[in-house]
Amino acid sequence: MGEIAGGASEAVHLSRGEAVRLVNTHGSQVVDTWCVHAADPSEYLSVEHTRRMLYALFPREGDMLHSNRRTPLLTLETDTSGCRHDMLFACCDSWLYRFYGCAPGHANCRDNFLSALARHGIEIGHVPNPINFWMNVPVSDNERLALEPPLSKPGDFIVLRAMAEVWVVFSACPMDITPVNGDRTPRCVSYEILGSSG
Amino acid sequence: MGEIAGGASEAVHLSRGEAVRLVNTHGSQVVDTWCVHAADPSEYLSVEHTRRMLYALFPREGDMLHSNRRTPLLTLETDTSGCRHDMLFACCDSWLYRFYGCAPGHANCRDNFLSALARHGIEIGHVPNPINFWMNVPVSDNERLALEPPLSKPGDFIVLRAMAEVWVVFSACPMDITPVNGDRTPRCVSYEILGSSG
Repeated sequence: MGEIAGGASEAVHLSRGEAVRLVNTHGSQVVDTWCVHAADPSEYLSVEHTRRMLYALFPREGDMLHSNRRTPLLTLETDTSGCRHDMLFACCDSWLYRFYGCAPGHANCRDNFLSALARHGIEIGHVPNPINFWMNVPVSDNERLALEPPLSKPGDFIVLRAMAEVWVVFSACPMDITPVNGDRTPRCVSYEILGSSG
Repeated sequence: MGEIAGGASEAVHLSRGEAVRLVNTHGSQVVDTWCVHAADPSEYLSVEHTRRMLYALFPREGDMLHSNRRTPLLTLETDTSGCRHDMLFACCDSWLYRFYGCAPGHANCRDNFLSALARHGIEIGHVPNPINFWMNVPVSDNERLALEPPLSKPGDFIVLRAMAEVWVVFSACPMDITPVNGDRTPRCVSYEILGSSG
């Protein structure tokens, strides 16, 4: 069991067959999530490949999440929220907070991703588009996008099952300008590793 | 004026203010398109940042196309087709053709992108999600995606205006399995550099 403070990040190692349960303790927190292959981080969870394999904008319970080499890295085994999980928008970064007029040094998911992996000695040359769990990006007219507060409830959780040996990176998004985290207050989430038996 | 054979690729240099007109000669050809900053190719056209800035799934005439540092790299100045241009699906790659049971060595947009830049001495560590001009990926129920033949007509063209000094990479998609290129026959396209005056 681990806790990730609001605005912070963590990289979690999973052997093939293991899973991680991620709990949205307060229900209002978006968690930007990446996955890289442990043996070769140049293979990573790719939302543009996953959309192509699912023929869908959003992942649903039971869906496999694919890598940039079109192999399944994770299965979204459980999703108690039943809501959309954005995988259309880039994570927040220092340039976004600059765009919003924030002072330099605002915590951001991009740096969180890089530093979480770096703490385990893993370097990766770019930042893939994450899956933003519980982030509510409604689509209208089959074209237009919006940013709205999350629809998830306190205690909602997902379970991600590893189809290969991987690192999963969670960033409890530090966004405090737009309403993606509800009342614009980043809050803690928790996670637990589950064995191969579930 | 240059011609790109069906299934081939080309990197085009644009100074700030210059533009390139890309002509869909036969109307049926999808062109996967990337853009990297000439001074630093780690800044590239990012569809996930562009969607966030446009709040839209597809780019329209007049839209600015943003980089992963949230600066505009290109403007889609003209688009005679008025149709959707996919930026949801990864480009085709060797793993996709393997998935379809093709023999090794099938031309693919991923290798086309890397080799077009390599011919100019530019190395880039990963392959961003391109904009797939004229590729017809309809969205239904604000969630589901499909792959359909293009709606563009012979002679349709786009003009991309450079907001910085950039390389634009075009790949006349070699796909001959799915109907993205209409009758599954990759065909040539042409391009022309336009000066700052348009």
